[in-house]
Amino acid sequence: MPDGGLKDHCGVFGIAFHPEAAGITHHALYALQHRGQESAGIVASGEGGLEVHKGMGLVADVFDRSTLARLGQGTDLAVGHVRYSTYGASALANAQPLLVRYRSGPLALAHNGNLVNAAAVREELEGEGSIFQTSLDTEVVAHLVARLSDDGPEEALAASLARVRGGYALLALAGRKLIGVRDPNGIRPLALGRLGDAYLLASESCAFDAAGAEFVREVEPGEMVVVDRHGLRSTPALPPGRPAFCVFEFIYIARPDSDLQGMNVHAVRKELGRRLARNYPVEADIVTGVPDSSISAASGYAEEARIPYEMGLVKNRYIGRTFIQPHQEARDLGVTLKLNPLRKVIDGQRVVLVDDSIVRGTTSRHIVRLLREAGAREVHLRIASPPYRWPCYFGIDTSSRGELVAAVRDGEEVRRLVGADSLKHLSLEELVAGTGAGGCCLACFNGDYPVPVEGGGRLG
Amino acid sequence: MPDGGLKDHCGVFGIAFHPEAAGITHHALYALQHRGQESAGIVASGEGGLEVHKGMGLVADVFDRSTLARLGQGTDLAVGHVRYSTYGASALANAQPLLVRYRSGPLALAHNGNLVNAAAVREELEGEGSIFQTSLDTEVVAHLVARLSDDGPEEALAASLARVRGGYALLALAGRKLIGVRDPNGIRPLALGRLGDAYLLASESCAFDAAGAEFVREVEPGEMVVVDRHGLRSTPALPPGRPAFCVFEFIYIARPDSDLQGMNVHAVRKELGRRLARNYPVEADIVTGVPDSSISAASGYAEEARIPYEMGLVKNRYIGRTFIQPHQEARDLGVTLKLNPLRKVIDGQRVVLVDDSIVRGTTSRHIVRLLREAGAREVHLRIASPPYRWPCYFGIDTSSRGELVAAVRDGEEVRRLVGADSLKHLSLEELVAGTGAGGCCLACFNGDYPVPVEGGGRLG
Amino acid sequence: MPDGGLKDHCGVFGIAFHPEAAGITHHALYALQHRGQESAGIVASGEGGLEVHKGMGLVADVFDRSTLARLGQGTDLAVGHVRYSTYGASALANAQPLLVRYRSGPLALAHNGNLVNAAAVREELEGEGSIFQTSLDTEVVAHLVARLSDDGPEEALAASLARVRGGYALLALAGRKLIGVRDPNGIRPLALGRLGDAYLLASESCAFDAAGAEFVREVEPGEMVVVDRHGLRSTPALPPGRPAFCVFEFIYIARPDSDLQGMNVHAVRKELGRRLARNYPVEADIVTGVPDSSISAASGYAEEARIPYEMGLVKNRYIGRTFIQPHQEARDLGVTLKLNPLRKVIDGQRVVLVDDSIVRGTTSRHIVRLLREAGAREVHLRIASPPYRWPCYFGIDTSSRGELVAAVRDGEEVRRLVGADSLKHLSLEELVAGTGAGGCCLACFNGDYPVPVEGGGRLG
Amino acid sequence: MPDGGLKDHCGVFGIAFHPEAAGITHHALYALQHRGQESAGIVASGEGGLEVHKGMGLVADVFDRSTLARLGQGTDLAVGHVRYSTYGASALANAQPLLVRYRSGPLALAHNGNLVNAAAVREELEGEGSIFQTSLDTEVVAHLVARLSDDGPEEALAASLARVRGGYALLALAGRKLIGVRDPNGIRPLALGRLGDAYLLASESCAFDAAGAEFVREVEPGEMVVVDRHGLRSTPALPPGRPAFCVFEFIYIARPDSDLQGMNVHAVRKELGRRLARNYPVEADIVTGVPDSSISAASGYAEEARIPYEMGLVKNRYIGRTFIQPHQEARDLGVTLKLNPLRKVIDGQRVVLVDDSIVRGTTSRHIVRLLREAGAREVHLRIASPPYRWPCYFGIDTSSRGELVAAVRDGEEVRRLVGADSLKHLSLEELVAGTGAGGCCLACFNGDYPVPVEGGGRLG
Repeated sequence: MPDGGLKDHCGVFGIAFHPEAAGITHHALYALQHRGQESAGIVASGEGGLEVHKGMGLVADVFDRSTLARLGQGTDLAVGHVRYSTYGASALANAQPLLVRYRSGPLALAHNGNLVNAAAVREELEGEGSIFQTSLDTEVVAHLVARLSDDGPEEALAASLARVRGGYALLALAGRKLIGVRDPNGIRPLALGRLGDAYLLASESCAFDAAGAEFVREVEPGEMVVVDRHGLRSTPALPPGRPAFCVFEFIYIARPDSDLQGMNVHAVRKELGRRLARNYPVEADIVTGVPDSSISAASGYAEEARIPYEMGLVKNRYIGRTFIQPHQEARDLGVTLKLNPLRKVIDGQRVVLVDDSIVRGTTSRHIVRLLREAGAREVHLRIASPPYRWPCYFGIDTSSRGELVAAVRDGEEVRRLVGADSLKHLSLEELVAGTGAGGCCLACFNGDYPVPVEGGGRLG
Repeated sequence: MPDGGLKDHCGVFGIAFHPEAAGITHHALYALQHRGQESAGIVASGEGGLEVHKGMGLVADVFDRSTLARLGQGTDLAVGHVRYSTYGASALANAQPLLVRYRSGPLALAHNGNLVNAAAVREELEGEGSIFQTSLDTEVVAHLVARLSDDGPEEALAASLARVRGGYALLALAGRKLIGVRDPNGIRPLALGRLGDAYLLASESCAFDAAGAEFVREVEPGEMVVVDRHGLRSTPALPPGRPAFCVFEFIYIARPDSDLQGMNVHAVRKELGRRLARNYPVEADIVTGVPDSSISAASGYAEEARIPYEMGLVKNRYIGRTFIQPHQEARDLGVTLKLNPLRKVIDGQRVVLVDDSIVRGTTSRHIVRLLREAGAREVHLRIASPPYRWPCYFGIDTSSRGELVAAVRDGEEVRRLVGADSLKHLSLEELVAGTGAGGCCLACFNGDYPVPVEGGGRLG
Repeated sequence: MPDGGLKDHCGVFGIAFHPEAAGITHHALYALQHRGQESAGIVASGEGGLEVHKGMGLVADVFDRSTLARLGQGTDLAVGHVRYSTYGASALANAQPLLVRYRSGPLALAHNGNLVNAAAVREELEGEGSIFQTSLDTEVVAHLVARLSDDGPEEALAASLARVRGGYALLALAGRKLIGVRDPNGIRPLALGRLGDAYLLASESCAFDAAGAEFVREVEPGEMVVVDRHGLRSTPALPPGRPAFCVFEFIYIARPDSDLQGMNVHAVRKELGRRLARNYPVEADIVTGVPDSSISAASGYAEEARIPYEMGLVKNRYIGRTFIQPHQEARDLGVTLKLNPLRKVIDGQRVVLVDDSIVRGTTSRHIVRLLREAGAREVHLRIASPPYRWPCYFGIDTSSRGELVAAVRDGEEVRRLVGADSLKHLSLEELVAGTGAGGCCLACFNGDYPVPVEGGGRLG
Repeated sequence: MPDGGLKDHCGVFGIAFHPEAAGITHHALYALQHRGQESAGIVASGEGGLEVHKGMGLVADVFDRSTLARLGQGTDLAVGHVRYSTYGASALANAQPLLVRYRSGPLALAHNGNLVNAAAVREELEGEGSIFQTSLDTEVVAHLVARLSDDGPEEALAASLARVRGGYALLALAGRKLIGVRDPNGIRPLALGRLGDAYLLASESCAFDAAGAEFVREVEPGEMVVVDRHGLRSTPALPPGRPAFCVFEFIYIARPDSDLQGMNVHAVRKELGRRLARNYPVEADIVTGVPDSSISAASGYAEEARIPYEMGLVKNRYIGRTFIQPHQEARDLGVTLKLNPLRKVIDGQRVVLVDDSIVRGTTSRHIVRLLREAGAREVHLRIASPPYRWPCYFGIDTSSRGELVAAVRDGEEVRRLVGADSLKHLSLEELVAGTGAGGCCLACFNGDYPVPVEGGGRLG
């Protein structure tokens, strides 16, 4: 569990043409809610114009019946967005989709990912007299599109994206068209679905399930798909680069019921758990996982190791962004409220604790202590991914390298820090083998970035 | 999963004497939130008087920083409550704790359970000129206490409870005393905990974990515990009846990390799953459970049957009391949004689906259909409890017998209704064996009510 | 302007039988909003039962479209209430109408006024085992009615009110009847109106205007009016006492467009201003009043004195219960925000400042200073009522006598305190003459209470 | 009362340098609330950066204690805005101040008024690739400033404003400077104030009173004032045009306690009423005005005519943007709720009704009918301004000419429409005489626009 360290993912969804486009987008955002809980928004378009609604909070907080009725009235195209990060209290200005007006009319953009040269392009645009009203990379793209829009939105979007580098899934609603583009390396996920005659685009296939739609295929790296009244067209908008799908989608971000790169996420995680068991067996009484993201890997470990899988920790479903005031006697109450060990299950046992990753190490330390306080005789920590050593510049905010515990400490130091009896990470080779035929971005583990990131890049 | 059929449980918590009584109660209510999501309330008491706050919604909605500051200011006793049911829009009047003033001062009551003769006693009291401002059984108790209060609150409470019948865990804050009473049959759960010099009372032990406190023991059937400045006293307030702890706490209601009757709930559920596997084996490829309540039983089944346990269904954590408008193409979207099958896991497989219970049968039918649509070759439904045939009068609202599918249809009819290839329920004997040394109320399965319920009883 | 000193008035409204009873009550509460801004509530009744909604805040805050739709669905009787006072944060429990259930069914009570022996009766009832859930006098009445209800609600209400003393206008909705009672001295106002076949009861006639209804007459002191399916009946429920209509309704509380005791409130206030001018003339350049309550009296003074009436002070309409943080340079900013002097009008002038009353004196001091800072050469304060010397026990909370500046200081001291060049109060005789043929309660000016108040009486 | 016809005014406020800049701006916006009730916003700036908060609704709705604390933390410059109009539900995007980032850093703009060539300039900018995120004229200015910013914000602002035409008061917060500019004709008001060492800019002088500050002088037409760490500088940024201060500020918009063009607004209105009386006397019993805007003129008429001024109509202070559902019997209830005639005052009288203006005529018709229903024997309508015949393009949204009743009907037709016994408007000459030495824009009365408006101009 990446202890709050990985927080910049978002989710995007689009649909054209369907008489209930706005309502379906609303459903789909529920399914994508795990990708972003800080703000949500929908832009819907019909013959009569555009409707927009955005707000801070969960999808359930942002949309009510009357707002949905307004969005749905006479509209048949829609794009939606859920967003994770907040930058201060004025964050509403940064909620997506971004809606602007340019010479060719209104343009709505919904974006998941990060552009590594956004700051430079932005500076260039400012030098030419552009004004910015948000801190979104998306606004940079909007400016580029507006300046290049002579040949229509598709060409303008393609030309604009040729000027930026990074990992992204970008949806645009321009005129009566829905456009989707995936970055040349396919770093961020984007899939195509179908519901009757309508086409859908989504960050994850679970959104299609929520919409009652069928998964068709993934959008290819560098591909642009355009849905208009004539149907679906695909163009290779950008020359594809080295395939580099974000492996962390498999490890942590995506929902277990989504399929990515042709594989089910839960199945991949379970396979990683099996490989972990084969490589790092240990004599133990029970296997347990950190809910929810590590349950799949833990059950894989347990099956492979033929050690009973137990529910050693229960997660409180009702703790959201709540206000918790610790009292004296129980300093770690915040964690205890969220995650409670089952003393009767743990007491006296040798426990294999499976987690998906360690980022800063603080959460792992807390959980190991919880298990020991619950009577665990031994705690063997097994991590279903290699040590996380390099910051991500493609849509996951891991702050600075100094905060990555594996970047600054060796394995034994980390083991001592988290207080485990043993600590093993899945190797890079096993991760690659477990996530299918290569083609993943592994930069956070090996520093090999698929796109040059010199100059680094403010994440925004 | 009892498809909305079982909805009248509540959770209670109390603490005395602790300088952070209100804050700890707030934490504890988070831990008990699964017992009631419709309203929440805290009454806190100090030398200077009482503070109260109640509201509709989740604990996180009802309490904010400033309310908690006010409740915590100078107080050292507190009782809290979470409630499930709503009766119409004026439900706020029914939020607990109930706070009244009687001749001996203020009295706060928090109650989980149901009194089978509440309506009769209420009528009697009205006949004597009493007025009622809520539809709570608790208000009946408050009236009785006020009329019998000559000898102090403990005696009055004992005498009052002697006049009512039912299943309950009742907490009272009277003067500078915290009082807890459990019904003579021990139908509803109530446990005693300790945090330094302070004593705590809670519906489930997981609340003690959230409070950083230790579990001491369960309150005995008919026992009254009183905490005042002199410490803890216990009195046998009511002659204990036949032990009849609600077996449905084990099956569905309680949190897996709670301990009840000396056993861990998850461990009991897993054992029920094992017994189910031994009694009703089936040739299959995977075992899956309905999240969250049936996961323990499903993993027990899988282990015993040596069939891989798979995550066949994913539950959306963000669907609360949300507004869902189904669109034409996908009528079962509501269910799909909440519960999504993993097609890649399910497709082509023979699936053992483990659920904790069947009440009306509608949810089971939906889930079986979901699995078939996801490609399941066979679906074998295994229920970790016997057929639910009799309404409960002790705190679980199962409406009328006519709605209980097993009360009106035989096993083969139910199987056809839910659409499973086979359907097996755990036998009563196995349930008893799995939940320990008898002593449970099994009335919902065998109609043998521990307390006479003739005249039935409006549930309220 | 009674500087926050007079804050315990309320407004009541009732209607029977009208298909839009709830909607009309909603309108009427807007018209009565000046009588209470802290909470509002409506109980509506139809053949199918009762609906209730209460909340903290203004009518506009408490009721929305869907709440009104629910209240209006199938109902044809309604009572509504607006309330001024708050006692702490749990004030919602004290919002009216009070809705209870007793042996004869549901009973809703809405009450304006104060019972001087409420505490004693309450203690008596508690001694007999009654419980109280609010601190309202109204709850005392509800208990009495429930105990005396053998002969029907009217008789029970009459018998109950025979046991209490005070000033009140009380509306009850019992079964399919609307009942209104006014105290034996007619201290608090209550009027009868008509809209088609429906009858209405209201604290002030302006509520009838808002309802599009006609004023019929005032309810007599001690009279009970009952509206049921057979029409309107009147009974002398309580032997009338000495007529003692609250003169402060004329002076400050009522809306200028209401008629009370057969006279228009604005006209009475203007007449008081004229009398003030005749008795206490002064050489001056302009006359100005404190908005809004003193405008009528000031214009009367100006006309009589033949001195131009000027708008010397403007009141900010948007300052409600707002949060104002004074900064260093302007300590009196709170007052300045609410009331701004017109420098160009005031500068260099000799000003007659007319106000309706002085309670604590602090507001008068502020206003005189504002005028002087705006350049007033002289400020002559003229008060359209006698010195306020005795606390009220009949529905106006003036706290203790010690806070009444005229009770503890002589006229010259008060003049110096407020900083006026001269200060004159209307005499009691002139007040009596101006408000018509005697019959008013003048206790706040002369201590002659119409009902014995020994033992005083907690105001509640 | 311009019956909702005049709704596009706004209020602006700025202050530099004061340690409580944000809090003072909050106070000032309360004082300017009458200029705009749909949205409010503050941008505050300190050494550490900018804070912004904007929201829909009244100042009291938009700002709470914690927001103000955040805005006030370490800031000493601030600009604030209240806005009247809404264009659909996405209006939040149009709340001001507009905050953008351009090459020289952040820039906040707050604007009252309208640019007649905004659409053309906007189109031009879009043609050059600019994107727009609002429908505000202010955003046009921001784009121009960004493109011209080589020589610093003052020069850029001056150059930008040279490209637009219209009436405006514009405040900018750029870097550590507060800048204010008034349009070359001085159409919209802007005044300079002082509080200790700090300077303030505001639409009306009443904001200085609320801030505890002193009025210094009005900003001159075409003048730019700049406040930075070196103090206040003034530059003639734009060549002044023909003086054309909006006469409707005197007639209706401004608060009576504000001073404009060296005159007090109430005094001007009263003088207009006197002139109206001298020109159009009538035999009558009472004079009454439509609250609140016509009270001053009515009292002037009464004094001059020596007819008693009476409060003939009472305005309900609690009707805001409320939801009113008329019931059958009383169709005009909406108006009656807002404005109630005093029957006892009106009945049998010959009434002079003074109003400030007639725009569409519907409100006048309602009020005349109210007075007649209250028993008025005659109603003589006197309007303290000439017939409103021409749409305004400088910040007051009067929609189309067709809606202006005086543009399409002659005087006698209007009299019949509103149902008055006689109807007289103040002549243009008297208006000019009453509002001082010429120099006012009278376009709405005579069509003589101070700035060419061919092409008209969408108001936005």
